[in-house]
Amino acid sequence: MKKKIGVLPGDGIGPEVVAEGIKVLDAIALRFGHEFDYEYALVGAAAIDETGNPLPDETLAVCKQSDAFLFGAIGHPKYDNDPSAKVRPEQGLLKLRKELGLFANIRPVTAYDSLLHMSPLKVDRITGVDFVVYRELTGGIYFGEKGRTEDAAYDHCTYSYAEIERIAHLAFKAAQNRKKKLTLIDKANVLETSRLWREKVTVMAKEYPDVTVECMFVDNAAMQMIQNPKQFDVVLTENMFGDIISDEASVIGGSMGLLPSASVGNKTAMFEPIHGSYPQATGQNIANPIATILSVAMLLDHLNLIDEAIEVRQAVNASLRNGMVTQDLSKGQGFGTDRVGDFIVNHILDGEASGSQNNI
Amino acid sequence: MKKKIGVLPGDGIGPEVVAEGIKVLDAIALRFGHEFDYEYALVGAAAIDETGNPLPDETLAVCKQSDAFLFGAIGHPKYDNDPSAKVRPEQGLLKLRKELGLFANIRPVTAYDSLLHMSPLKVDRITGVDFVVYRELTGGIYFGEKGRTEDAAYDHCTYSYAEIERIAHLAFKAAQNRKKKLTLIDKANVLETSRLWREKVTVMAKEYPDVTVECMFVDNAAMQMIQNPKQFDVVLTENMFGDIISDEASVIGGSMGLLPSASVGNKTAMFEPIHGSYPQATGQNIANPIATILSVAMLLDHLNLIDEAIEVRQAVNASLRNGMVTQDLSKGQGFGTDRVGDFIVNHILDGEASGSQNNI
Ligand SMILES: CC(C)[C@H](C(=O)O)[C@@H](O)C(=O)O
Ligand SMILES: CC(C)[C@H](C(=O)O)[C@@H](O)C(=O)O
Repeated sequence: MKKKIGVLPGDGIGPEVVAEGIKVLDAIALRFGHEFDYEYALVGAAAIDETGNPLPDETLAVCKQSDAFLFGAIGHPKYDNDPSAKVRPEQGLLKLRKELGLFANIRPVTAYDSLLHMSPLKVDRITGVDFVVYRELTGGIYFGEKGRTEDAAYDHCTYSYAEIERIAHLAFKAAQNRKKKLTLIDKANVLETSRLWREKVTVMAKEYPDVTVECMFVDNAAMQMIQNPKQFDVVLTENMFGDIISDEASVIGGSMGLLPSASVGNKTAMFEPIHGSYPQATGQNIANPIATILSVAMLLDHLNLIDEAIEVRQAVNASLRNGMVTQDLSKGQGFGTDRVGDFIVNHILDGEASGSQNNI
Repeated sequence: MKKKIGVLPGDGIGPEVVAEGIKVLDAIALRFGHEFDYEYALVGAAAIDETGNPLPDETLAVCKQSDAFLFGAIGHPKYDNDPSAKVRPEQGLLKLRKELGLFANIRPVTAYDSLLHMSPLKVDRITGVDFVVYRELTGGIYFGEKGRTEDAAYDHCTYSYAEIERIAHLAFKAAQNRKKKLTLIDKANVLETSRLWREKVTVMAKEYPDVTVECMFVDNAAMQMIQNPKQFDVVLTENMFGDIISDEASVIGGSMGLLPSASVGNKTAMFEPIHGSYPQATGQNIANPIATILSVAMLLDHLNLIDEAIEVRQAVNASLRNGMVTQDLSKGQGFGTDRVGDFIVNHILDGEASGSQNNI
């Protein structure tokens, strides 16, 4: 199979972790006989430095023409300290989402058995946690009219039927393939947009009779996420609540360095580790590449390369089980970013050599 | 000292826990020679049942004439299951806040040593946690224009300079009396209202040179609250973010049953446990009265009865230390709501009998 893959390394540790992701894609191509054509493009602070624009037109074109693209991270202290500045790295990300119509941000949250001890939560609360957040990504208060009057500022939040429906369908379908439970997070006791979400989702539930639907106020959800995260299967929510709840959920497993994400639309889709650009760690070969490598697995799923995605996840599990991990996950000093990538690559290629998993 | 105290028991367990709060106020009056005149009024589902209105005019009048008022909890399944219904209990609460100008919701978060084992968080993360959230309560998306168009819904969020300033002053002053750190939680990389908050608070910081100010994006704050809650001292934020973050923070100590709150304005102020009306527990004498009793302590502080407030807190600490607690905090079956209240009342009155604390 031949596919066009956009590559947007971005800032900070972005280029380092993306390099490992590409190594993994190369290994998959070799092992399974695919051809991935990579096109690199600038985004974020790196793009501002070179072009003055956090999302140059060429970058947008690269993404549009891709079957899928891998995104590293954006942000650099030189631009981030002043959120009032005219040009900021995250504008590139927001514009990318909007221009490409990447309306659904999908974030699996998994508590890995071998890492439970790293979580700030007690082990019994998180053992077996495995859910996925569907966050609406191109609507709501993020993209409404905003501005200033003489003595005030405003942000408008709007949601249309269509915006709610398209992501809700994705979430319902995901629930059908999982534990068949969908939790809608809203603030329907206060917000009119939330009431619309609740109405729509309640009506749509009739099309998915095998899925149990629960509605939860966002304040309660912020508690439940910590008190009893095992109750969740598919979590569906609007843009701003999703930003907060999915970051909160990311602490459950004990490491941001493991969490991948996908942002999908009707055409191309973007795959990105949820962690930031960690400028302090740049160039030190200490960044954890696993979140990016698991994002590559989601990318492969998206391209319908299911066996290939499984192979990547098995290789990641092997690295976790064998303690082939970076400093953040290690009791000792850990291994370098590239060494962890090498281990995973070799595991994938060895699978080929040995022919089958049983062949040990 | 003579004071007018409004009493709004509300729904569910509200009346039971408020009864214990009043017992404690009576004990304080007796011991310190004060006179508290109580005026009871209806609110929430109880008020809808009797008058069709979750906040009858007489209730508003009682609150307006009070020096301070105690509020139980509101909500009943019969009205709560449909957030689109025209008349709902929480409308009473929202109207109360707005009509009385209760612009600052203050929620202390304390991890009690004797209860660390109850927290979903690991003990080392929470030992010594002690911060307070200042949530803006009468502005933002809660009270902006909201409605429907043909195929969409909208909610408008607005903040004025004045709205930001008045609560920020309270928060800065609180920080001066505590560990001198203020964390502003916003989403200034996306929202114009957040940029206004950040600008205002940054300028105001010059008036409080002894206070260190930190600005944190709300998504990051939702993580930090769990990863490292010890870093916080005074947390300041807008209405919607405050709703989410303060509920998230409430799980740290391991029990909602202990957390009080105050909602203050320029005239009267309201004191309320942060837990809900728990309809399932109604009438069983199992509700934990301590959150209400600690709200009474905040009420006494507000009336400038500082020694009296200390006395209440010492009595509560004694009940926790001695295991004189309700079922939710007990390894065994625990004591009844009224028994816990009695213990605290007796501890306050015994203080009088023994004359001094050293006299044991
Ligand atoms: C950088 C920021 C604009 C962005 C968001 O709020 O969506 C980030 O927090 C995320 O979740 O991807
Ligand atoms: C009941 C609801 C309207 C209210 C709010 O959102 O403010 C509650 O969650 C609270 O925090 O007091």
